[in-house]
Amino acid sequence: MKRLKENYDIQQFLEKGNEIFLPNISVDCVIFGFHENQLKVLLLKWKDLQQWCLPGGFIYTDEHVDDSAKRILLERTGLKDIFLKQFYTFGNADRERFNVGKSPVKVKKGSWILNRFITIGYWALVEFSKVKPMPDFLSDSCKWWDVNRLPKLMLDHSGIIRKALESLQFNLNDYPVGHNLLPSKFTMPELQQLYETILNKKLDRRNFQKKIIALDILERLPERKLGGAHKAPYYYRFDRKKYQKAMKRGLKFGV
Amino acid sequence: MKRLKENYDIQQFLEKGNEIFLPNISVDCVIFGFHENQLKVLLLKWKDLQQWCLPGGFIYTDEHVDDSAKRILLERTGLKDIFLKQFYTFGNADRERFNVGKSPVKVKKGSWILNRFITIGYWALVEFSKVKPMPDFLSDSCKWWDVNRLPKLMLDHSGIIRKALESLQFNLNDYPVGHNLLPSKFTMPELQQLYETILNKKLDRRNFQKKIIALDILERLPERKLGGAHKAPYYYRFDRKKYQKAMKRGLKFGV
Repeated sequence: MKRLKENYDIQQFLEKGNEIFLPNISVDCVIFGFHENQLKVLLLKWKDLQQWCLPGGFIYTDEHVDDSAKRILLERTGLKDIFLKQFYTFGNADRERFNVGKSPVKVKKGSWILNRFITIGYWALVEFSKVKPMPDFLSDSCKWWDVNRLPKLMLDHSGIIRKALESLQFNLNDYPVGHNLLPSKFTMPELQQLYETILNKKLDRRNFQKKIIALDILERLPERKLGGAHKAPYYYRFDRKKYQKAMKRGLKFGV
Repeated sequence: MKRLKENYDIQQFLEKGNEIFLPNISVDCVIFGFHENQLKVLLLKWKDLQQWCLPGGFIYTDEHVDDSAKRILLERTGLKDIFLKQFYTFGNADRERFNVGKSPVKVKKGSWILNRFITIGYWALVEFSKVKPMPDFLSDSCKWWDVNRLPKLMLDHSGIIRKALESLQFNLNDYPVGHNLLPSKFTMPELQQLYETILNKKLDRRNFQKKIIALDILERLPERKLGGAHKAPYYYRFDRKKYQKAMKRGLKFGV
């Protein structure tokens, strides 16, 4: 089991990468968060470059691809047990990860990092407030961006985000994954606002509530959220056991 | 552009593979067909082995992954312009393609073919009657199997087929792709039978017909299918232009 040492630097990474990672395959993560009624994506900015990119990385030769994705997420967000879904593998012939003009690091000719990389895309849903964005050794900034106002992105990363969003919308219609983006207790209006933001359309309040309650995966708590202009709404909590039962029955949401 | 010559043999394949293919990545295709009310999968049997496998192959260093899948399908089925969908990438750490006990070919120690391979899964929908199954240079048989009665399969291929079937069922609910499995003209009962077989459940006749017609992607032909026990049903044909319009509107089938 060959691994980079903790706190590895760019030189160790470039020198060892050839032996410890699979060549030509990478993982990229589209990390979604929800804040102030915006769907956000976590991006890194490369040192010395005005280009942003998705948090990504490589696969150890003896590592399950899902574990690579989890490791990258942990490194970038500090979070474990994140809702994670592989959604697509991007296989254009011209995907050269470091072919981005002026490279932020000195790379020797023939280095493995200059290879063509096929990248396996995952999206992740995280609770915004719990994440402490951390730049990696290649980047000088890591921050959230509104999915509708993205900065200039390297390679095909804006296409990867678009595809991830489509996949999230598609899945939201069939599996109620949205609660992963909210704190552990939330109100019905908050959940509906989240769905409306992701699906980019208004939903009927009664209909939404009826459908989501019919799924029988939420538990209503005795507390109400106070301080709003309207009647104080109840808090709800997602119930994992009920969800697993519902999945066996075959969920069908369809908002 | 390095390619194997046409009619390459196993020795050329093993010797040249290292230079012309990406290492550690393969493509596997789950080719679905529909015949006598069974959903079928096209499988290959390896020479000298009692194990079957999916038609698969490797990716040329300068080839788009989708093009690799199309090339493999063409080699195996003789068909072009097949409905093809990438559905999942299988990244278990122990996926060694040739680690199947007694290998059907002599392979040198250290050969690239003994590597770990991450495989990108595609499913394809073909019209059963148009396919002439062709074994490749590693196999002595290529034939259709009922998806519910599969033979012993190598590696994780039965899991790949299960996942492909789930993806097909999932997609059938949202996109009306089923017609790709039928001849260019078909009756409503034939289409319903196909859906029932894939989804593995009975569907209400009126409801099915109402929903599929509401999608406005089929054209009813003036001819009827004669010779049945019941009233002769009309033939329908899939209308590509209408389909493209419907996709822009956002299709939602939900049977």
